[in-house]
Amino acid sequence: MADEQTKIMMAVNESTIKGYPHPSISSKGAFEWTLDKIVRSNTAGFKLFFLHVQVPDEDGFDDTDSLFASPEDFKNMRHKDKIKGLHLLEYFVNQCHERGVSCEAWIKRGDAKEVICHEVKRVHPDLLVVGCRGLGPFQRVFVGTVSEFCVKHAECPVVTIKRSASETPQDPVDD
Amino acid sequence: MADEQTKIMMAVNESTIKGYPHPSISSKGAFEWTLDKIVRSNTAGFKLFFLHVQVPDEDGFDDTDSLFASPEDFKNMRHKDKIKGLHLLEYFVNQCHERGVSCEAWIKRGDAKEVICHEVKRVHPDLLVVGCRGLGPFQRVFVGTVSEFCVKHAECPVVTIKRSASETPQDPVDD
Repeated sequence: MADEQTKIMMAVNESTIKGYPHPSISSKGAFEWTLDKIVRSNTAGFKLFFLHVQVPDEDGFDDTDSLFASPEDFKNMRHKDKIKGLHLLEYFVNQCHERGVSCEAWIKRGDAKEVICHEVKRVHPDLLVVGCRGLGPFQRVFVGTVSEFCVKHAECPVVTIKRSASETPQDPVDD
Repeated sequence: MADEQTKIMMAVNESTIKGYPHPSISSKGAFEWTLDKIVRSNTAGFKLFFLHVQVPDEDGFDDTDSLFASPEDFKNMRHKDKIKGLHLLEYFVNQCHERGVSCEAWIKRGDAKEVICHEVKRVHPDLLVVGCRGLGPFQRVFVGTVSEFCVKHAECPVVTIKRSASETPQDPVDD
């Protein structure tokens, strides 16, 4: 058992302040925690799996100025989104490469919490790491609770990593 | 940062079927998961902290045949409980010793979920690992939810490890 690499899956998203290709403060924090506290110097013992879920509606918001005259236009839009997502994943893959940790990364579209749990079923990671904003109960209701859903429903152990207070932006809903 | 050991705290309890000094199926599973999937061969990189919380009322149950005639008798009972708890911790400390992982272990009395969160504040672990029975929502209401409370309130990342289906006793409330 100890010969096989430990598979750690991470759900990563873009910054709501800086947009693509910048990772969110939570994703970055969760990634650094995983490397510093779990992988440490044992780079051969772990493999990281980065999943980025693009939410169709939310992503479409940037495209309110675009004109959609044919099905082709929608395809092009999705293609542009995908490129943005790839740039986000590139950040994590590059970091792993520099530290000598093997990894895989991919993009899915859909409802983040549903897709993450679905991909856990497919990939069978030993651990799912999800960053979270650490909001109070009132703010949480409106922001959605991907991490809470995963803790309850993902079919593998899940750890959520909160942002440190010093990294929390003025508006804690930002990330 | 990577030079300091990663501190992993584990809350462990005795088996409800076999009693002391046998660890519960959940505690044992969580411990083995931590060694196999996180510590792996990097034994120098981690330090484990075992906390066993004795719940006063529950433990008193075994002593229904005892006669309590003086305050001294109650002290003796607590002393006996403590010895039982030590035998439980001995199991985990011995396992760590065999694998060359450094550790500390101690006993507290009180409400498990409150004590665990209090000790997290004191010890500042990088990760808290809690085993859980993985019961359905109906059973959970009556059994209590130490792991759920810790996920919400402990001031550090928390991972809960469910028992595998093959290890679940006939009555899933047993452990």
